[in-house]
Amino acid sequence: MDPDLSALDAELADDDADGYLLDADSDDPDQRYLSGFVAPDPFVTLYDGDTHLLVSALEYGRAKTESRAATVSRHADYADDAGGREANTELLGRFLDDHDIDSLLVPERFPVGTADGLREQGINVTAEDDGILVDIRSVKTDEEIEKVRDAQQVNERAMVAAENAIQGADVEDGQLVADGEPLTSERVKTAVETTLLQHGYSSGETIVAGGADAADPHNDGSGPLAAGEPIIVDIFPKSTDTGYHADMTRTFVKGEPSERAEEWYELSNEALDAALDVVEPGATGEEVHNAVCDVYEDAGEPTLRDDPETETGFIHGTGHGVGLAVHEMPSLSFEGGELEAGNVITIEPGLYDPDVGGVRVEDFVLVTDDGYENLTDYPKRLRIE
Amino acid sequence: MDPDLSALDAELADDDADGYLLDADSDDPDQRYLSGFVAPDPFVTLYDGDTHLLVSALEYGRAKTESRAATVSRHADYADDAGGREANTELLGRFLDDHDIDSLLVPERFPVGTADGLREQGINVTAEDDGILVDIRSVKTDEEIEKVRDAQQVNERAMVAAENAIQGADVEDGQLVADGEPLTSERVKTAVETTLLQHGYSSGETIVAGGADAADPHNDGSGPLAAGEPIIVDIFPKSTDTGYHADMTRTFVKGEPSERAEEWYELSNEALDAALDVVEPGATGEEVHNAVCDVYEDAGEPTLRDDPETETGFIHGTGHGVGLAVHEMPSLSFEGGELEAGNVITIEPGLYDPDVGGVRVEDFVLVTDDGYENLTDYPKRLRIE
Repeated sequence: MDPDLSALDAELADDDADGYLLDADSDDPDQRYLSGFVAPDPFVTLYDGDTHLLVSALEYGRAKTESRAATVSRHADYADDAGGREANTELLGRFLDDHDIDSLLVPERFPVGTADGLREQGINVTAEDDGILVDIRSVKTDEEIEKVRDAQQVNERAMVAAENAIQGADVEDGQLVADGEPLTSERVKTAVETTLLQHGYSSGETIVAGGADAADPHNDGSGPLAAGEPIIVDIFPKSTDTGYHADMTRTFVKGEPSERAEEWYELSNEALDAALDVVEPGATGEEVHNAVCDVYEDAGEPTLRDDPETETGFIHGTGHGVGLAVHEMPSLSFEGGELEAGNVITIEPGLYDPDVGGVRVEDFVLVTDDGYENLTDYPKRLRIE
Repeated sequence: MDPDLSALDAELADDDADGYLLDADSDDPDQRYLSGFVAPDPFVTLYDGDTHLLVSALEYGRAKTESRAATVSRHADYADDAGGREANTELLGRFLDDHDIDSLLVPERFPVGTADGLREQGINVTAEDDGILVDIRSVKTDEEIEKVRDAQQVNERAMVAAENAIQGADVEDGQLVADGEPLTSERVKTAVETTLLQHGYSSGETIVAGGADAADPHNDGSGPLAAGEPIIVDIFPKSTDTGYHADMTRTFVKGEPSERAEEWYELSNEALDAALDVVEPGATGEEVHNAVCDVYEDAGEPTLRDDPETETGFIHGTGHGVGLAVHEMPSLSFEGGELEAGNVITIEPGLYDPDVGGVRVEDFVLVTDDGYENLTDYPKRLRIE
């Protein structure tokens, strides 16, 4: 994939910097994006109009064939006999000198040890505040859109596994039971993650949260699940191969939901539709978020917009970008700026209260030239029997 | 768990620093260790003799109950109405001021944006070169040793899954076949990772590499597996619950191995035993590594010690520490310093050549007061039919 790095070129020109430098492993989405290379240990990527990699001997062969770099160098090409950090930053200094680099922009989270070591060698290192690569990454190429589509297809199979596990459970004394054992959040997660694995995906964390667990949006859920209470299933898998994610949430009740849970569910679907109506290039993430807040507030539910201190009601943002990172730009919240065609975003309204539990519905959406395409093809039904 | 942080106290006193600061998510092992807290987004941990956390509102409740911190603060406790990085580092400055911190040690990979922002507020920020927490983490507490033992038990079940998959395959035209389909590296990895998942473990990457793939120690393997060739299976799972890892490698041949592969296998086991004979507190990682090089060189195999340019033979270090990180201190290589009781290490000699493939055997070992305890209880047999 050849990303459009013209915004990075412009930023370097604006700041009169000779290059942009990353020192990170490929779990860092900026590193994976700019280098086009996957390695478990930190390596260096320099962008000066072209992309140059500096890697260990162990990664050299792979980097030459697999990365998108114009040149690949080995530590040994610049090493002397000394060891330790000083020798490492001196080595890096020689690599930069070789590329005529006297001044660098780096991301905020660039390692301070490396930055200070380069500064000691007279190289000007400035931490940029704009998240240039984060911004570039927020607009997906056609190739990236195919990868998130693939991820969403697998995500829906995993959601089937979760829904089937809950639907297929027996109810004994109000508790869900499968194969003679309590059906727990952990068992449903295993069903989800096994499905992901079989399709070459993994999930660092899957949320299967019922009861009071579901009332805390960051609680991933544990222990036995009960009939009649909303169970939030939020799956955000990552492709082992491509590194791209999908993200979707459904809420299920096995048996009879409370009237309040049903109201919340309908309201959240209404909020999701209202948000989607706003999504188009030029609309802001804040406007999308406001559409959700409007629906909830009109129904008398608390929101952070109405009461920044509330611990119940709609207590998070409306959504976020998804790509190499599961949470990335753009933000659909009070801080959300203008959407662009090519953004891949979530819309995930929800309501929470320890006395009721939690309800959330989340679709996965592509911003298109004339609005949006919903990448989600999964039914929304609260009650499953 | 209450770690022994006296070395950190001493370093702060030596450097006349008021505190040690981390700004990272809990995937950073130092952060997880010092904070005792797991969160997906970066948060701040200050150590000044006690441990203090600064987290977002979303994490506040969990941080208070789950972390090992003496105090937990919210961003809102120090926020003003501004946004952006400047406001964030000013907020952090107020938090540090509240704890009377004027000078800080930070790890090398601390974010330069945060460091520079604090420096602008007159706080002295020095990146330390010693990896103080890395050193502290290299000596495990009894509680940590139980966690790596648990991880190794699960790892051995996963290795059984791999061995069974290979052993149970049919051979058709020299290729391994299972259920009528070619047995691929990917299918064996899925068997491994499904087993890990069912026990609450995950593996970012499992190596199942045959043929020429196995000749590159960093190649995780792909495609159909063949009879008669060594298949390296290297599994390093992480507990979803505790965050601790195990690490073990076996090499299998389905069918008849070549004479050369058999020689390599015996030699590698001999090298492993020779290395174990050296392991005790006070022995250096370099001495352990030299014991492996001696065995290989005596048999006429190339090593990086003998020829730093070699691309075949024994072309990596002998091992590494394992804990919250899968690769951590101590190093068992040319740079390896003295071992200490409580180190948890791998010993993993191997030989590689694209014309032969690769062979590696790896045990997982605890350094004890009077030598070592091998935490591995898994047979070593090359040929499986």
